[in-house]
Amino acid sequence: MSLQGILLSCYVLLVTVVNCKARYEPNWESIDSRPLPDWYDKAKLGIFINWGIYTVPSFHNEWFWYRWKGTHDPDYVEFMKNNYRPDFTYPDFAADLTAEFFDPNEWARILNSSGAEYIVHSSKHHEGFGMWPTNTSFNWNSMTVGPKKDLIGELAAAIKANTSIHYGIYHSLFEWFNPIYLQDEANGYKTQNYVDTKVIPALHELINKYQPDIIWPDGDWEATSTYWRATEFLAWLYNDSPVGDTVVTNDRWGSDARCHHGGFFTCEDRFQPGVLQKRKWENAMTIDRASWGFRRDASLNGYLTTQDIIATFVETVSCGGNMLMNIGPTKEGTITPLYEERLGDMGSWLAVNGDGIKGTRPWTTQNDTLASNVWYTKKSTTVYAITLQWPTGLTFSLAAPMTQPGTTVELLGYPGTFSWKARAGKGIDIMIPDIPFNKMPCKWAWTFKINGLANV
Amino acid sequence: MSLQGILLSCYVLLVTVVNCKARYEPNWESIDSRPLPDWYDKAKLGIFINWGIYTVPSFHNEWFWYRWKGTHDPDYVEFMKNNYRPDFTYPDFAADLTAEFFDPNEWARILNSSGAEYIVHSSKHHEGFGMWPTNTSFNWNSMTVGPKKDLIGELAAAIKANTSIHYGIYHSLFEWFNPIYLQDEANGYKTQNYVDTKVIPALHELINKYQPDIIWPDGDWEATSTYWRATEFLAWLYNDSPVGDTVVTNDRWGSDARCHHGGFFTCEDRFQPGVLQKRKWENAMTIDRASWGFRRDASLNGYLTTQDIIATFVETVSCGGNMLMNIGPTKEGTITPLYEERLGDMGSWLAVNGDGIKGTRPWTTQNDTLASNVWYTKKSTTVYAITLQWPTGLTFSLAAPMTQPGTTVELLGYPGTFSWKARAGKGIDIMIPDIPFNKMPCKWAWTFKINGLANV
Amino acid sequence: MSLQGILLSCYVLLVTVVNCKARYEPNWESIDSRPLPDWYDKAKLGIFINWGIYTVPSFHNEWFWYRWKGTHDPDYVEFMKNNYRPDFTYPDFAADLTAEFFDPNEWARILNSSGAEYIVHSSKHHEGFGMWPTNTSFNWNSMTVGPKKDLIGELAAAIKANTSIHYGIYHSLFEWFNPIYLQDEANGYKTQNYVDTKVIPALHELINKYQPDIIWPDGDWEATSTYWRATEFLAWLYNDSPVGDTVVTNDRWGSDARCHHGGFFTCEDRFQPGVLQKRKWENAMTIDRASWGFRRDASLNGYLTTQDIIATFVETVSCGGNMLMNIGPTKEGTITPLYEERLGDMGSWLAVNGDGIKGTRPWTTQNDTLASNVWYTKKSTTVYAITLQWPTGLTFSLAAPMTQPGTTVELLGYPGTFSWKARAGKGIDIMIPDIPFNKMPCKWAWTFKINGLANV
Amino acid sequence: MSLQGILLSCYVLLVTVVNCKARYEPNWESIDSRPLPDWYDKAKLGIFINWGIYTVPSFHNEWFWYRWKGTHDPDYVEFMKNNYRPDFTYPDFAADLTAEFFDPNEWARILNSSGAEYIVHSSKHHEGFGMWPTNTSFNWNSMTVGPKKDLIGELAAAIKANTSIHYGIYHSLFEWFNPIYLQDEANGYKTQNYVDTKVIPALHELINKYQPDIIWPDGDWEATSTYWRATEFLAWLYNDSPVGDTVVTNDRWGSDARCHHGGFFTCEDRFQPGVLQKRKWENAMTIDRASWGFRRDASLNGYLTTQDIIATFVETVSCGGNMLMNIGPTKEGTITPLYEERLGDMGSWLAVNGDGIKGTRPWTTQNDTLASNVWYTKKSTTVYAITLQWPTGLTFSLAAPMTQPGTTVELLGYPGTFSWKARAGKGIDIMIPDIPFNKMPCKWAWTFKINGLANV
Repeated sequence: MSLQGILLSCYVLLVTVVNCKARYEPNWESIDSRPLPDWYDKAKLGIFINWGIYTVPSFHNEWFWYRWKGTHDPDYVEFMKNNYRPDFTYPDFAADLTAEFFDPNEWARILNSSGAEYIVHSSKHHEGFGMWPTNTSFNWNSMTVGPKKDLIGELAAAIKANTSIHYGIYHSLFEWFNPIYLQDEANGYKTQNYVDTKVIPALHELINKYQPDIIWPDGDWEATSTYWRATEFLAWLYNDSPVGDTVVTNDRWGSDARCHHGGFFTCEDRFQPGVLQKRKWENAMTIDRASWGFRRDASLNGYLTTQDIIATFVETVSCGGNMLMNIGPTKEGTITPLYEERLGDMGSWLAVNGDGIKGTRPWTTQNDTLASNVWYTKKSTTVYAITLQWPTGLTFSLAAPMTQPGTTVELLGYPGTFSWKARAGKGIDIMIPDIPFNKMPCKWAWTFKINGLANV
Repeated sequence: MSLQGILLSCYVLLVTVVNCKARYEPNWESIDSRPLPDWYDKAKLGIFINWGIYTVPSFHNEWFWYRWKGTHDPDYVEFMKNNYRPDFTYPDFAADLTAEFFDPNEWARILNSSGAEYIVHSSKHHEGFGMWPTNTSFNWNSMTVGPKKDLIGELAAAIKANTSIHYGIYHSLFEWFNPIYLQDEANGYKTQNYVDTKVIPALHELINKYQPDIIWPDGDWEATSTYWRATEFLAWLYNDSPVGDTVVTNDRWGSDARCHHGGFFTCEDRFQPGVLQKRKWENAMTIDRASWGFRRDASLNGYLTTQDIIATFVETVSCGGNMLMNIGPTKEGTITPLYEERLGDMGSWLAVNGDGIKGTRPWTTQNDTLASNVWYTKKSTTVYAITLQWPTGLTFSLAAPMTQPGTTVELLGYPGTFSWKARAGKGIDIMIPDIPFNKMPCKWAWTFKINGLANV
Repeated sequence: MSLQGILLSCYVLLVTVVNCKARYEPNWESIDSRPLPDWYDKAKLGIFINWGIYTVPSFHNEWFWYRWKGTHDPDYVEFMKNNYRPDFTYPDFAADLTAEFFDPNEWARILNSSGAEYIVHSSKHHEGFGMWPTNTSFNWNSMTVGPKKDLIGELAAAIKANTSIHYGIYHSLFEWFNPIYLQDEANGYKTQNYVDTKVIPALHELINKYQPDIIWPDGDWEATSTYWRATEFLAWLYNDSPVGDTVVTNDRWGSDARCHHGGFFTCEDRFQPGVLQKRKWENAMTIDRASWGFRRDASLNGYLTTQDIIATFVETVSCGGNMLMNIGPTKEGTITPLYEERLGDMGSWLAVNGDGIKGTRPWTTQNDTLASNVWYTKKSTTVYAITLQWPTGLTFSLAAPMTQPGTTVELLGYPGTFSWKARAGKGIDIMIPDIPFNKMPCKWAWTFKINGLANV
Repeated sequence: MSLQGILLSCYVLLVTVVNCKARYEPNWESIDSRPLPDWYDKAKLGIFINWGIYTVPSFHNEWFWYRWKGTHDPDYVEFMKNNYRPDFTYPDFAADLTAEFFDPNEWARILNSSGAEYIVHSSKHHEGFGMWPTNTSFNWNSMTVGPKKDLIGELAAAIKANTSIHYGIYHSLFEWFNPIYLQDEANGYKTQNYVDTKVIPALHELINKYQPDIIWPDGDWEATSTYWRATEFLAWLYNDSPVGDTVVTNDRWGSDARCHHGGFFTCEDRFQPGVLQKRKWENAMTIDRASWGFRRDASLNGYLTTQDIIATFVETVSCGGNMLMNIGPTKEGTITPLYEERLGDMGSWLAVNGDGIKGTRPWTTQNDTLASNVWYTKKSTTVYAITLQWPTGLTFSLAAPMTQPGTTVELLGYPGTFSWKARAGKGIDIMIPDIPFNKMPCKWAWTFKINGLANV
């Protein structure tokens, strides 16, 4: 072989390598091998938005239809009996999803105030109502019944125009009462008419039209990923869709997939393992203690306090998770002031403490053994000890950090460094100075930034 | 061959003959060869019932949605602007199809009072709303939106329980705004997703569940029978469905089929050829001059008079047709008293004149040349001359009947026979006696029963 | 006294006489002495229009509220339970009295087609809802709830612009559930707060604003005319109101007034004494057999036939009464085609027979003793014998007319005169010629016009 | 005079004195002379509840009807045009005041959590809709339209059963669109039909039925107290009504009365004079910055923060006022969580600082000249210095207190006493110790309790 020939061969090989992007195969081994796009792990906080026809009765929670007509829970049956004509049906609610105050730019402003870096917006819940002008749900979508608006499209556009937040889409795979689905179920999932005529076309519509950075399926648990054609879909999503490079997805692709396959793991709702996880995971939780959809009948004690939320968040991030925090807009299209307040609290806390959250990775220790309210994160060679309770004494003792002479300790949002002493064996005693009430940098949780540790 | 062997062979052959029913092939030649079940031709009069969401706005006619949102006719646009909130959609009307007064037994009584022998009940109009609990139209059917009733099933049962009327089903093949259909259309009808996922499953549901004696498709004209899979469906209908022996169908199976293939011919709405047709046909017409659906804005002059109706009917039957006369029930589920009056008039007329209508066949002549208001029918050797105008003089002259000595002339509903004289060449002069006003057997049209004609 | 002085005095006296109009005193003797304006007796036929909130439920009849909430009739209670939310109230119906098709000119056309010469239009029924923009019923009238229209004013104007019909107003004095009325009732009608703050101001509004030719009170029966301040009101109406010269009123001015005092007597609903009355009276009756308001649940047999109506009318007129025939418009503001048909039948009958009705007076005989279906009227020296049944034989025998040589007999709408023979003693035998069916001038009833009688 | 006689005379005199209650005359001098019942001044905090039909559109504020139909503000006109049918009227909203979640016991719990000692509940706003089953507003009240509930009665009962809060009633005297009122206005208020048939009967109903501790009129400003018959009413209220001993009322009894006569002075909405007032006054203000009624279109920044509220409250109390803080419930009958949170914040603050608020009187100084965020109150010989900002340094200097040797300084909610030094001339320097974040007794404002001052 001539030199020229060799060089040519090399050139061809190089071109191949450069052009080559691995194509994922429609099986879990291949799908699972895809690295999660980087932005997701760095983001830490997402806002989940559950909005649908259930916000018209807006009673108890978003499973309204199923509790009323599926399991006949007396509360729901009574509510309907007391307030509606006897033959009123759930779809009859749809005309009252008026969304007259829906202002996507205002939503973008409120969402952005939280410091979150992504949102997940429900395109369809288990009721089956499409929140975009879909071809897959004739007269059971927001363009032809009720709002007469492309709710998905309008919010996606406003988010892109006003913020740097990543836009994601939630989509329920199953539908409680869709007869095509129920027929597949009755057939032991040996037929896939529902998947072929509804699920897959809808997902393609959503991805091609709105190019989301997240696809967040749900309602998968009654059937396997084989029934849902999950790996085929994901191979297309990763290989050929317009969002192949950036999109992330979760693990809710079938009873065999949850907590085992897919993108990041969500396992179950409000998943909070408390210990470090091997794979990237997400804690999907709600500000409303009992409901994902807005419920008119919630009192204040039905909502988490900001303290509750930040405690959950810090633990989640420390253990390697992201937190996806849910809000439920109203049928008129507003985010209530209470939700706005919680989101703003989160944003004001992150404005001070974000350095210890955004872009961090779990440290070797998560929860300190001496200070049980302390959770750790790490970024490069910096360790962050986030405490959910302000130290009561002059000395704040932590077990995990191993100091060395150059070790420094700061409090995020407060000037200067703090004195410290090494504890016998391992650990550190931080000297807490006298900080006047007005000089406290934040409420709810405080972040100690520790550099120069021996065990970073 | 032994006698026993011969007998056995004969037996086997006989069994074959007895069991053998011709199986129709999925092509028009075979489908068209099926003889129309006998009951249909004998019946002569059917009642058509168009009922759907359009009876909620109940304005102008049942094409409301299309005129409003398809062609933007100013009348409809103004009506909506003046009476509804700006974002109101057509599907939003559905909750008001309350049908609270729907009493299928009362409908059966009223329908039966007309003397009709079959009805055709709309299961779905071009709007796509299913009037039965169908699996093919999730949340766009009468069980899950609005009435919360199986309107098809309840009427079918009441008709069967209370009358001997044949129950038939109207079904629009296309839907103005169904996105799956529109996609097939955009594809030049090279895809058939709409037919495969919607039309054929819906037709199977209807036939298997309600076992109708008539399937009356419509909305076929934009595509060919190939697109609609018409011959395959009809082969199944005739060969294997539970109604294979009794069902009749029309010709609205595609742009190539109308007036050419199928069961009886309807050609176009209000088809009235005025001359004898080769194939059995039907005149589908409306009591309301302008609408198939009930419209609240109709004055009395918007309705045909009984005189108009009977004139149409007599001409239709004389030329070999059946008449399918439409009524439009209200959103509350009633048949208005005016419709009931027209139906009752029809019944009272048939009570006297039915002998010249039911079970008759066209005669050699249809319309008399001397008495232009006279139309003929025939049954066995009896000829019926039905006049739409009571003779003004003492002599009533007809050109077509060729008398002979034993010829007798009677008036249905009136005792005795009438004197007559043969006209020169051909024809008859009937002597009209002095009948007091109170003794007239009927109004609107009168039937002369002529026996013993030479040219029967 | 000079001649000039005498003449001047005479002139002054004459002016006084000419200008002098008797002023009525607020007592029944004086009120009853007023002669009924001439137009009313001549008119014979009026159309009554009952329209209100009860046409929204439009169920059973216009006493809906009272049957539901007053006497708790199970039918009404069930209807509400089955079709409305539990806390729905009767006033909640008001927003649905939409009247979107109300076209007063079209109403004028239909009303005029009946041949009636006056109408009585309900301004307020026992429910208390004002059908005009009244100051006496804040937020319980048609301008501020529901139609947002002056229904009284619009119809009054259209009637005046398009027809020569006299416009009259119905007004219920009492209100089932008005707390001010109920308080007066509880006080044994010794207080008159309701009359002073509601009834009298409303009547003044109506008369001053719409200047009706008829005031038709109702709902009087629970209290006396003293409570209602009837004679004071009527003295004002006759002496000082803008309609003093033309207005007529009825007798429904209190439990002591009905059938005893006021203008024409109505006594009770559907009053039909069958014999001549001393004072001018009116038969207020309904085309719908069971309801004054439109009811959606009426079948055809719920309505009088044209035959029924004309029989009632002829008897009423013969006995000196007027007939006030009621129709009930729909909540959308239409007069249904069936009502229109009945009205048109009346008009077509009057077009032929009006000569024997309009402007007539009772004859000495009302009901013939030989022909029990014959009722008489008289105008000048002409006697009209109106038969409800066409004579079955050749001779039509009447007992009452006493012929003399110049007596002539005609049939209204038919050319020529009929032969007759005097019966022994008294009475006439009219020879009925052979009239072909097509030449009969009318249906339902026929008028023989008899001139030159000896006993006219 | 015998001893016995003297004793008897004494006895009679004593009886007279004991029995004697001054009767107030119907003139302002007499009415104004009545001492305000003691409980009111001690209470300091009341909660105002504005709830009516305006919470159905729930847009911008409770003047919705007037802004739409009175002044035609484009915002309101557009809102109606975009969201309702063209002929929709304000009274048409009433059926949607459903109040299905109204739970008076839950309201009592929430109201009580605020630490307020009285509430003022709107019985009727300028729209005229009665929130109780009144005889003065037929079909324009909460028992016959919409909720079908006695909202006043249910809350009054729950407040009495569950709390020691004083129950008061707000009542608008005028009504924007009541024709009877408008007629009086057109008559230059020379007629008083509206007052006699509506206002006075309604006030009597409310007082006799619910026996409130407060009558809080409003909507008085267009006419004088003479028109409203204010002094006559108040004389009855104080002398003869069932609440004569306990009731308090405000000054909104006519254009001449505001800020001049009546009970406590409210002058104008959100009255905050900033200096000590001679007569007891009240600052009626709103948590929602722009509306008294609930508005669905408010964002978080539309509400006062707790910091804002407490600053207003402290200033108000220091200057001798009470604060009446308004919340607006929703059409479904709930108090939103944000309002609940603000109320709860108020309660938690009062739990610590109530000693310096409840039962206090103004001190000689209100606002400190050295510490501009400090406002004073006084109780017996104790002076309270309430600071809206936590001292930033170690020394907290106040100008007004004149110390003497036994002077002590405490912080409410924190144990022990603080060191202090007299300032030169007058004033005090309080030494602020190092209080850890977790030991701070409260947020928003802190109360220094100072005993033993020389200038108390």
